[in-house]
Amino acid sequence: MEQISSLQNPRIKHLVALEQKSSERRKEGLFVVEGQRELDHCIHAHYEVDTIYLCKQIAGSDYVPPQGRIIEVTPQVYAKIAYRATTEGVVATLRSRSLTLSDLHLSENPLVVVLEGVEKPGNLGAVLRTADASGVDAVIVCDPLTDLYNPNLIRSSIGAIFTVPCVACTSEECIDFFKQRGIQILTAQLQDSELYYDIDMRRPTAIVMGTEATGLTPIWRQAADAHIRIPMLGQLDSLNVSVSAAILMYEGVRQKQS
Amino acid sequence: MEQISSLQNPRIKHLVALEQKSSERRKEGLFVVEGQRELDHCIHAHYEVDTIYLCKQIAGSDYVPPQGRIIEVTPQVYAKIAYRATTEGVVATLRSRSLTLSDLHLSENPLVVVLEGVEKPGNLGAVLRTADASGVDAVIVCDPLTDLYNPNLIRSSIGAIFTVPCVACTSEECIDFFKQRGIQILTAQLQDSELYYDIDMRRPTAIVMGTEATGLTPIWRQAADAHIRIPMLGQLDSLNVSVSAAILMYEGVRQKQS
Repeated sequence: MEQISSLQNPRIKHLVALEQKSSERRKEGLFVVEGQRELDHCIHAHYEVDTIYLCKQIAGSDYVPPQGRIIEVTPQVYAKIAYRATTEGVVATLRSRSLTLSDLHLSENPLVVVLEGVEKPGNLGAVLRTADASGVDAVIVCDPLTDLYNPNLIRSSIGAIFTVPCVACTSEECIDFFKQRGIQILTAQLQDSELYYDIDMRRPTAIVMGTEATGLTPIWRQAADAHIRIPMLGQLDSLNVSVSAAILMYEGVRQKQS
Repeated sequence: MEQISSLQNPRIKHLVALEQKSSERRKEGLFVVEGQRELDHCIHAHYEVDTIYLCKQIAGSDYVPPQGRIIEVTPQVYAKIAYRATTEGVVATLRSRSLTLSDLHLSENPLVVVLEGVEKPGNLGAVLRTADASGVDAVIVCDPLTDLYNPNLIRSSIGAIFTVPCVACTSEECIDFFKQRGIQILTAQLQDSELYYDIDMRRPTAIVMGTEATGLTPIWRQAADAHIRIPMLGQLDSLNVSVSAAILMYEGVRQKQS
């Protein structure tokens, strides 16, 4: 088995570049995951493994890594390539893939979540985590300002980026897609809106949310079948976008199931 | 006006200790807030200002600080005492106060959220933020492992720690309080539970949640009027505690309002 003990090894430098730079990820068509469970999620979702960096002292002798090219690293090298100081002991590069709208296989009566212009990878990751739990058909990110393989996104999604179909596209493409398929568009906005629980979500539905700072662009407001809002009953007038998304997704679940 | 330009000034060291150590906050009966809006929330909630540390170059000449002892600091000192590299320019110490259960003024038909053994200040802050938005009567933290004036908690609550009545007590005290007032206890747990939207929350209700790692202790499960769960329809079987709390709080809002 190949071994690396030097922090100056070009492979290690390349790996760190993949972790830090979206341009590097795009150029190479690779991304990085960390942790045994996260790697399992990737493999379960049929992602192709490029290289596994294994620190046996940390992973423990019981750990059986997945098939693929395995490079053993020292604890010191592992500390450089890993974000978490936990006892996982495995970091891997995998081949990225980009789903398009036409790749999506929606159910008969789908519930889809759309985030326009999402900036913070952690927020998108948190939305994906709830999207997995609530069983939504897909998460679509329109004109995103982060790439889908950002390490913070992968971490905060706790692997949901691999379990939930996730597509990046333009708002125009996304609106066309919904219109062609008869999926109602519900935009989250404070003005000219109805309370979210007064809207029928039992039919094919897309819940569309903008950024916390600037909300949705006009193209979405105009394309909407209804505008919905979460009632704000406090003094601060503010909800985190991943919390808002969770409330709306689970209202969809509630209506469809009850 | 008093001025401080040295990082070695004992007041500055004292302030940093208050930010970093809960023992110091307890001993002094003081806590620290940062930011103009956060300080406004405190004053609006009648917290007593101890000292305001103002950096005029950052706050801008238009900013009028609240009444109280004001100490001017240089940008260099401000950089040491402030967490955020933003243009706020104000950090203040305020006198802490600890509400008890008997201080709570609940509405006729209250909705209360209880978190048992919450560990991460950021999670409690996020719950408080949603608690403000959803207009719950109070947040009660039982046997907490964080103090209520932790800077991460204040930050992530975006000031909701000052707008939402928040009490720390033991689980036993809290259960007695609910039983005496006829407030139904709904515990969030996966086993032996009903779907949360099948439970009537239109009467006085407490939603009780444990930690993500270990859930609730037996005392709560036994005291419960009903056990509730959020359906988990994905592969990861996991929701963030602040997201779970948000889904349950807004179900209470929905039922009470519709």
